Amino acid sequence: MSTDKSSSHISQRYDDELSGVKSQLFEMGGIVEKQVKDAIQSLLDIDSQIAEHVVKDDTRINDMEVAVDEDCALILARRQPAASDLRLVLTIIKTTTDLERIGDEARKIANQAIMLAEEGPAPSGYVEIRHIGHSVSTMLSQALDSLVRQDVNLALEVAKKDKAVDLEYGTAVREMMTYMMEDPRSISRVMGIMWSLRALERIGDHARNIAEHVIYLVKGDDVRHVGIKQMAKAISDDD
Amino acid sequence: MSTDKSSSHISQRYDDELSGVKSQLFEMGGIVEKQVKDAIQSLLDIDSQIAEHVVKDDTRINDMEVAVDEDCALILARRQPAASDLRLVLTIIKTTTDLERIGDEARKIANQAIMLAEEGPAPSGYVEIRHIGHSVSTMLSQALDSLVRQDVNLALEVAKKDKAVDLEYGTAVREMMTYMMEDPRSISRVMGIMWSLRALERIGDHARNIAEHVIYLVKGDDVRHVGIKQMAKAISDDD
Repeated sequence: MSTDKSSSHISQRYDDELSGVKSQLFEMGGIVEKQVKDAIQSLLDIDSQIAEHVVKDDTRINDMEVAVDEDCALILARRQPAASDLRLVLTIIKTTTDLERIGDEARKIANQAIMLAEEGPAPSGYVEIRHIGHSVSTMLSQALDSLVRQDVNLALEVAKKDKAVDLEYGTAVREMMTYMMEDPRSISRVMGIMWSLRALERIGDHARNIAEHVIYLVKGDDVRHVGIKQMAKAISDDD
Repeated sequence: MSTDKSSSHISQRYDDELSGVKSQLFEMGGIVEKQVKDAIQSLLDIDSQIAEHVVKDDTRINDMEVAVDEDCALILARRQPAASDLRLVLTIIKTTTDLERIGDEARKIANQAIMLAEEGPAPSGYVEIRHIGHSVSTMLSQALDSLVRQDVNLALEVAKKDKAVDLEYGTAVREMMTYMMEDPRSISRVMGIMWSLRALERIGDHARNIAEHVIYLVKGDDVRHVGIKQMAKAISDDD
C-alpha cells in the first residue's frame, strides 16, 4: 500500500512538473504573441513609446527561455521520460528557441519603429507591413494553438500559410526596391521598412517551425525540410 | 561475472553511441564551415557554379540535422543520460539547430551570388564582405574547435568577436545605404550585398550561440543573454 501511494505521489509530481513546464511555455508564447503585435503596431502608428516597451520586454522572454530550458533539463535528468513524454520535453526545448528568436525579431521591428519615429515615416510600405504583419501574427497564434490542442491539421495550415507569406514578402521587397530607385532620398526610411518586412518573414518561418514541432510531438515524424505534400501525408498516416 | 560483462558491454555501446553522435555533429560542422567559405567565395569571385553547389548541398545539412536529432532522442530514450552526458546530448541538439541555420544563411548568400552573377557585380561592398566574411568564418571554426576541445576560453573569444562583428556590420550597412543614395541605379545590386552582409552577421550570431552551448556543456551555466563580463565570470568560477 505505502509503496503504491508513494509511487503515485511521484507520478503525480512528475505530471505536475510536465504541466508546469507546459504552462510556462504557453505563458511565454502569449508574451511573444503580444510583443509581435505591439511591434507591428508601433511601426504602423509611429509610436516610439510602445516600441520602447517591446525592446525592454525582450529580456523577459530571454529569461523565460532559460528558465523553461532549465526545467526541461531537470525533468530529463530526474524523470527520464520516454515515448510521448520525451517527445513533449524535446518539443518544448525546440519551441522555446523559436519563441525567443521571434522575440528578437519583434525587438528588431521595434528598433526600426524608433528610428522611423525620429527620422519621419517612410513614404511607402505600410500596407505591406500591415498585411504581412497580420498574416504572421495569425500564423503564430495558430501555431501556438496547434501546440496547446495538439492539432496537426491546424499545424499544417500554418505551414501552408508560410509559403504564401514568403511569396508576398518577395513581392513587397521588389516594390520597396523600385520605390528606393524612384526616390533615393527616402532610402534610409524605406530600408527601415525592408528590415521590418524581413523580420516579419522570419517570424513566419519560426511559426512554421513550431508547427513542425507539433507534428513531431503528435505523430513522431520529423517533418522539417520536407514539402507540404509530405507533411500532409505524415499527418494523415495512422500510427 | 556475467552481469559485469553484460553491463560493461552496455556501457561500451552507450559510449559508442555518444561518440557516434558527436562525430556526426563534427562532420556536420565541417560541411557547414565549407558551405560558408564557398558561399563567400562565390560572391567575391562572381562564380555562380560554386554558388549553385552551395544551394544544392544545403539539403545534405538539413538531412544531417534530422539524423543527429533522431539519434539524440534515441539516446535520451534508451540510455537516460544524467549530468554531463545529458548536457552533452542537449548541447548537440541545440548545436545542430544553429548549424542548420548557418547552412540556411550560406544558401542565402549563394543565392545573392547567383543574382549578382546575372545582373553584374555590385559597384561596392566587396571589401566589407571579404572582411566580415573572414571574421565570421574564423568565429565558426573557433566555435566548433571550442566544442571539440571543450575549451571555454576559446568559446569566450568567439563571443567577444561577435560584438566586434556586429559593430562592423552596422558600419558596413550605413556605407551601403550612402552608396545607394549616390547611385540609385545600383540599388538592386547593392541590396544583394546588404542581404549577404546580413546573412554573415547572422552566421556570427549562431557561432556565438554554439560557443555559449560549449560553456553550458563544460560549466553547467546557461550564459545565453548575459554580457561578456558575466560569461567570463562563469568560465573562471571553479565548480
